[in-house]
Formats: sequence, C-alpha cells, structure tokens
Amino acid sequence: MQRPDELRALVEGYVADLALTPELHGQADSVRYALVGGKRVRGVICLATAEAAGVEPEAALPAAAALELVHAFSLVHDDLPALDNDAERRGRASAWSEYGEAVAILAGDALLAEAFRLALSYPTPHVGRELAQATLGMIGGQYLDITGTAPDETTLHRLKTGCLFYASVGVALWVAEIAEREQAPWRAFGDELGLLFQIVDDILDADGYVLVHGADGARRLADEAATRARDRLADLPADTSMLADIVAGLATRTS
Amino acid sequence: MQRPDELRALVEGYVADLALTPELHGQADSVRYALVGGKRVRGVICLATAEAAGVEPEAALPAAAALELVHAFSLVHDDLPALDNDAERRGRASAWSEYGEAVAILAGDALLAEAFRLALSYPTPHVGRELAQATLGMIGGQYLDITGTAPDETTLHRLKTGCLFYASVGVALWVAEIAEREQAPWRAFGDELGLLFQIVDDILDADGYVLVHGADGARRLADEAATRARDRLADLPADTSMLADIVAGLATRTS
Repeated sequence: MQRPDELRALVEGYVADLALTPELHGQADSVRYALVGGKRVRGVICLATAEAAGVEPEAALPAAAALELVHAFSLVHDDLPALDNDAERRGRASAWSEYGEAVAILAGDALLAEAFRLALSYPTPHVGRELAQATLGMIGGQYLDITGTAPDETTLHRLKTGCLFYASVGVALWVAEIAEREQAPWRAFGDELGLLFQIVDDILDADGYVLVHGADGARRLADEAATRARDRLADLPADTSMLADIVAGLATRTS
Repeated sequence: MQRPDELRALVEGYVADLALTPELHGQADSVRYALVGGKRVRGVICLATAEAAGVEPEAALPAAAALELVHAFSLVHDDLPALDNDAERRGRASAWSEYGEAVAILAGDALLAEAFRLALSYPTPHVGRELAQATLGMIGGQYLDITGTAPDETTLHRLKTGCLFYASVGVALWVAEIAEREQAPWRAFGDELGLLFQIVDDILDADGYVLVHGADGARRLADEAATRARDRLADLPADTSMLADIVAGLATRTS
C-alpha cells in the first residue's frame, strides 16, 4: 500500500503528462497553465479509495485526473472578473489574468470537456455520471453563493465543496467495480470528507465556519467531522489505513 | 418513417420537458432560458440517423437533446462580452444580457454538464465520448477564431460547426448499436452536413464563404456539398429518404 505522498506523485505525474485533445490547438496552453499547482487532494482520495477497494491505484488515474480537471475548471471560472474577480491563484496570475477573459472562459470549458473525456475512458458510463452529478452540484452551489440565495451554510458547502469530495470516493468505487448495493458505507465516508476539508479551510482563512462558530467552535466541528470519517472507515470491510492517514492529514493541515 | 418537422417536434417537446438536476437550484432558470428557440437541426439529424439505422427515433431523444444542450452551451459562452459581445440571440436578450455575465457563465457550464448527464443515460460510454470529442473541437475552433490563428477557413469551420454535425450522426450510430467497423459511410455523410450548413449560413448572412468566393461561388459550393451528402447517403444500406429530405432542407433554407 502506497503512502499519500506517493499517491500524490502518481496524480501529479499523470496530470503533467496528460495528452490533451489535438483539436484544442493553441487553447491547450491555458488549459495546462490552469492545471499547475494544487494539492491534488481529490485525486489522492480517489486513488486511496480505489486501493482500499481492491484495485491498483494506477487503474484509477484517469478518474483521479478527471476530478482534478473538474476542480481546475471550477477555479478558472470562479476566478473570472464577473464572478470572484481573483487576479491571483496559487501564488501566480489566475488564468484570466494571464490569458485574458475570453481564453480563460474557453480554458474552463476545455477542462470540463477533457474531464469527461477522461471519465469516459472507462467501459462503464458510471464514472462519467458521477462526475456530471458532482459538477452540476458545484455549479448550483456557486449560483447560490454569488446570488446570496443559499438557504444555509451547510447546503452551500455541501454543493460547492462536498459534491466533488463525495465523487472522489464515488468514481473510485465504480473503477473498483464495487456493486452499487455495497457502496453506501463508502459513500457515507465520502460525505464527511468534504465537510472536514471545508471547515479546516475556513479555520486557515479565518472565515466561514470561524465567523459563525468562533475559532474553538470551528476546531471542535472539524475534529467531530474527522472522528465521524474515521468511524465510517471502521465500518468498511477493507484495509482503510491509508484513508485514515488522509483524514488525519486533512484535519491537521496548515496550508 | 416520420417527417423532419415531426422529428423536430419530438426534440422540442423533449427539451422543453427536460428535468434539470435539482441541485442547480435557481441556476435552472437561465439554463431553461438559453434552451428556448432554435431550429433543433442537430437533434433532428440525430433522430433521423437513428431511425435510418434501425431504431425508434424516441430511443435517440436523450442523445439528440444532449447535442442541443452542447449547441446552447456554445452560444451562451460565445455571446459573452469577452467573446463575441452579442446582446441579442434568437430575437431576444442573450443569456448574459438577461441574467448578467456571472449567471450566464454558469448557465453555459450547466448546459454542458447536463448534456453529459443526458449522453451518459445510455449504457455505453460511446455517446458521451463522441460528445466530448465534438465539444473539444468546438472549443478549439472558437479559440482559433477569437485569436485569429486559424490556418484556413476550412479548418475553422470544421471545428466550430462541423464537429457537432458530425457528432449528430455519430451519437445516433452508437444509440442504434451500429458496429464501429460499419460506421465509416455514415460518418462520411455527417462530415458533409456541417460544411453544407456553414456555407448556407454564410450565404444567408452574406459573410464567410461569400466574401471569399462571391455569392455565386458560395452557392455552387453549397450545391456541391449537398450533392456529396446525397451521394454518401446512396452508399448506405438503409432507407435514407428522411436524411435526404434534411439535406434538401439544409441546402434550400432561407433562415
């Protein structure tokens, strides 16, 4: 069983060497630019889940990369002037700031379409279905966010962040050919991961959950989410030690 | 065998009644707005191809709708101020003009993701793969267009318009379970359709091919493309009378 940083190196190498569709022509440059950096958390969760479910992590690499491309798509479009208007991303110019708005809009579109191309490299349509559902949830969440119409913070974060974490577990289950009737306990674990990630994010940025619950309250909520995630792992008929390491890493991360 | 306007009514009804993913929340309004209007040419070609290939056109409705959603996605993003800056579309306000740029960007994203959800409702991943390939070609074509870097007009139109017409035939072949080794003559037909559509579009708008070849020259090119399309149909071991009607309609359309 490989350690999280070994899985991260696998995802990183696969994304860096990804052959983009030649028909993208010069558009490919901005797509590659948007794929540089990031912690590859979703891809690593996918590979670790696949490994725990009984297949080689390498078999899940196209699915893991698809998750990272959907994540990158959402960042490229969210950063646009009309949305969050962020000129910086991961310590350098955001895609629109580097390539202009038009090419950045197309870069996000291309990342999403390439993500589906990767998800559809599997013989089953389930990997792609899982990705489509997560993408639609993220878009709905972003809508609620920018229009200020979210019914509550939990709904908002479940859509904006939770959907893709949930799918990170979900796509791996399809790759590992876990029967649908046996997926529920794995998915319950996936559900906790997004919440844990979001609360820790807010602790690091001193916003969101920290503004509502205070620093100590947010820390307690994060620890509770981590405990629930570990409890879900204990329910699984598999060696989930790597996934437990990932939970610990998410709960204690400092960046 | 149903006539083209009956197939159009089928596509129209299916798109109008389409159940969008509930997680889109209020974003669904702009998605529906962007789906109103249009001639549903791509969807009709898909249904007619499916019928000629031996299945009920109804079986191809999700694939036909997916094509129409990808087309709508491309219009919504192309109309944005950063790209073509079109405030009008189909005789009323374009999506960004009606809902603002942020919601329009998300509407395009949602249309694309919903298109894949529809394409993935089939048990085979081939319908989705065909759609991903076409979408990436369209994005590459739009990039060449806005950056003025297209090597020639043919390459540009093949990507911007041709890809999705080609896929309109392609997805229907997968729905009809035509073996890959038997698809080539059908696909040769699909290849001519996009070109025919584009030349006639330019004749109606007095630009593109008309500027290069003059009005008479463009008309001659359109007639030649229509003739080649009919010749391709004659090669097919199927009743292609409806597809011939569609070719005639595309060649002589006045709007």
